[in-house]
Amino acid sequence: MTITEKSEIDVNAINEKLPFLLRRENVARYEDGQVVMLDRSRYPFERHFVRCRTVEEAAQAIEKMIIQGGAQWIVAAYAMVIQAREAARLDADAARASLMRAQSRLVATRPTNTAISRNLGRLMQVAEDALARGENLEAALLAWIEAARDRSFVRWTRMGQYGAELIADGDGVLTMCFAENSFILTLIFAREAGKSMRVFVPETRPYLQGARLTAPSLHELGFAVQLITDNMPAYVLSQGKVQKYFTAADLVTLDGHVVNKIGTFQNALAAHYHGVPYFALCSVVDASRPDRASIVIEERDPAEVRAARGTPTTLEDIPAYYPAFDITPPHLVSGIVTEYGVLNPYDLRRFYRPDAGRKGR
Amino acid sequence: MTITEKSEIDVNAINEKLPFLLRRENVARYEDGQVVMLDRSRYPFERHFVRCRTVEEAAQAIEKMIIQGGAQWIVAAYAMVIQAREAARLDADAARASLMRAQSRLVATRPTNTAISRNLGRLMQVAEDALARGENLEAALLAWIEAARDRSFVRWTRMGQYGAELIADGDGVLTMCFAENSFILTLIFAREAGKSMRVFVPETRPYLQGARLTAPSLHELGFAVQLITDNMPAYVLSQGKVQKYFTAADLVTLDGHVVNKIGTFQNALAAHYHGVPYFALCSVVDASRPDRASIVIEERDPAEVRAARGTPTTLEDIPAYYPAFDITPPHLVSGIVTEYGVLNPYDLRRFYRPDAGRKGR
Repeated sequence: MTITEKSEIDVNAINEKLPFLLRRENVARYEDGQVVMLDRSRYPFERHFVRCRTVEEAAQAIEKMIIQGGAQWIVAAYAMVIQAREAARLDADAARASLMRAQSRLVATRPTNTAISRNLGRLMQVAEDALARGENLEAALLAWIEAARDRSFVRWTRMGQYGAELIADGDGVLTMCFAENSFILTLIFAREAGKSMRVFVPETRPYLQGARLTAPSLHELGFAVQLITDNMPAYVLSQGKVQKYFTAADLVTLDGHVVNKIGTFQNALAAHYHGVPYFALCSVVDASRPDRASIVIEERDPAEVRAARGTPTTLEDIPAYYPAFDITPPHLVSGIVTEYGVLNPYDLRRFYRPDAGRKGR
Repeated sequence: MTITEKSEIDVNAINEKLPFLLRRENVARYEDGQVVMLDRSRYPFERHFVRCRTVEEAAQAIEKMIIQGGAQWIVAAYAMVIQAREAARLDADAARASLMRAQSRLVATRPTNTAISRNLGRLMQVAEDALARGENLEAALLAWIEAARDRSFVRWTRMGQYGAELIADGDGVLTMCFAENSFILTLIFAREAGKSMRVFVPETRPYLQGARLTAPSLHELGFAVQLITDNMPAYVLSQGKVQKYFTAADLVTLDGHVVNKIGTFQNALAAHYHGVPYFALCSVVDASRPDRASIVIEERDPAEVRAARGTPTTLEDIPAYYPAFDITPPHLVSGIVTEYGVLNPYDLRRFYRPDAGRKGR
């Protein structure tokens, strides 16, 4: 397979291949001063859309995980557009100040995945330029976001193409959480190349991303899935049923540590023990995060651990602990799948420069 | 601490130390041709007792996990007493045949844990003896069961004493599933020796033994617990919060493979990676099971994976997989805690002879 050039990628055609949950228009869209998003906390039981009218509403939607994963930054970015629209009646200094307050609120929602921080930082530069030129702020931000979403499709497509090359016909594939577009495109492109595979999906407690988002999305596309609970991956590996382990990454540090939904690390340990390679699909290595010490692991409300979809799993007074992410060290990572190829986790500095925050070659 | 002699153990005093769920009278009791047991599937939300009037009802209670773990054989044994009472009106041959049918039905309930098979085998010898002597069958079986339950208290007490010696003051202790009496006595004796500890309890999907049985029982006794989901142990270990990993064992083979609730193995891998010792508490090494190949792993209804306490976690048509146990190889096991001490997993043949099925020295 030749990895396609950017110009060859038809965003709409790629979008059509995706499951309902990941279609661009369902993930999130901006409509006249409002952000509309599919409520991932109720999926797949309801196809319910949530409408946020203010930055605060959007920030709370992110905090409550109505939106999650790779789509959080999009909602945060559209929330900035809401603020930009509000700011139209203000002078440049007041507009800038109001956008900075919105940025600050939105970046504070969730500390581990740095995509919100990175993208809102760039959006503020766009806003500065628009203010300097006296352009329409709302239109300028929106144009940047839609172009960035287009670029994401290009990136996911390349990652999917590199990922698909790693899969052999007949593979059992283990995943974790909801690895979204790049993982699903990996499977789609592998199938288009004539390969068949079976995907083992841990349910990913407590939010159940695996059970609610990944398994139904793969099933919708006709892939063979097997839902398992989070205590089963090592046993399934021991049975020889898995040949590849793929996850997304909420954050990859410059020295190759992969931060992803909690459980990713213990699955990587089990994969390593059984001689199964682990590939992390990563849209952007965060060049501002050099190492493990620079990672912030979010701890969420322990009450979420005491329930499953609102049904109590234990008594109310039982103390619980909910770290939301974990860290897989580079020696357990066989490759970081990026738009540049399947990178060695020890060789990321060649592609991502600390000063640029993006490809530096 | 001196490991007490059998004669020094006061069964009632030990029973008083246990949480509600594990009190001898609550686990299961025989009442006038019926078996009464605490319904573990509803615990801790209800303290509901189930009454079985026939062997078939008792077999189904075991299959549906109304009773589970180390207490299954007790219900199976009392079910044999129900059959013995019925058999009073039969001649010896017919009585023997009816008991053998009951035995066969009960042994077939769950294939991994061999305690039912082992104990009902002995109970059949007791029945043969009683039939040969023309004794009251019901009374003979009941007497054997109560004596066996007394011996269990002695065994658990010794295991708890050996286990407590392994714990250091301030330890974080990881467990899995519901390790019952020997584990809880380990913690109780460690506390009585002035040690404090904090216990991390994975919820243990899908039946939630950790969330429903272990965490509430430890909390009831005043131990510091932290409930976590099954994808969290490796991360908690990576934080340096765990110094010992203890589980029960549904089965230990003569060559030191530990079979226990699924998830035990991947936690053992994570413990090993982090330099944390893993101790399996084992009432009886099954000398009729020489090695890994002799283990039968039960697969349960995949529908259980698609729900949590009856609440769907995914769509009905998503394929799921539910192996109920896994296997931890001896090189990941630091010790098998038995009534004879903390045995080396490679040295079990010295204590358990294939022909005897019990201590052979």
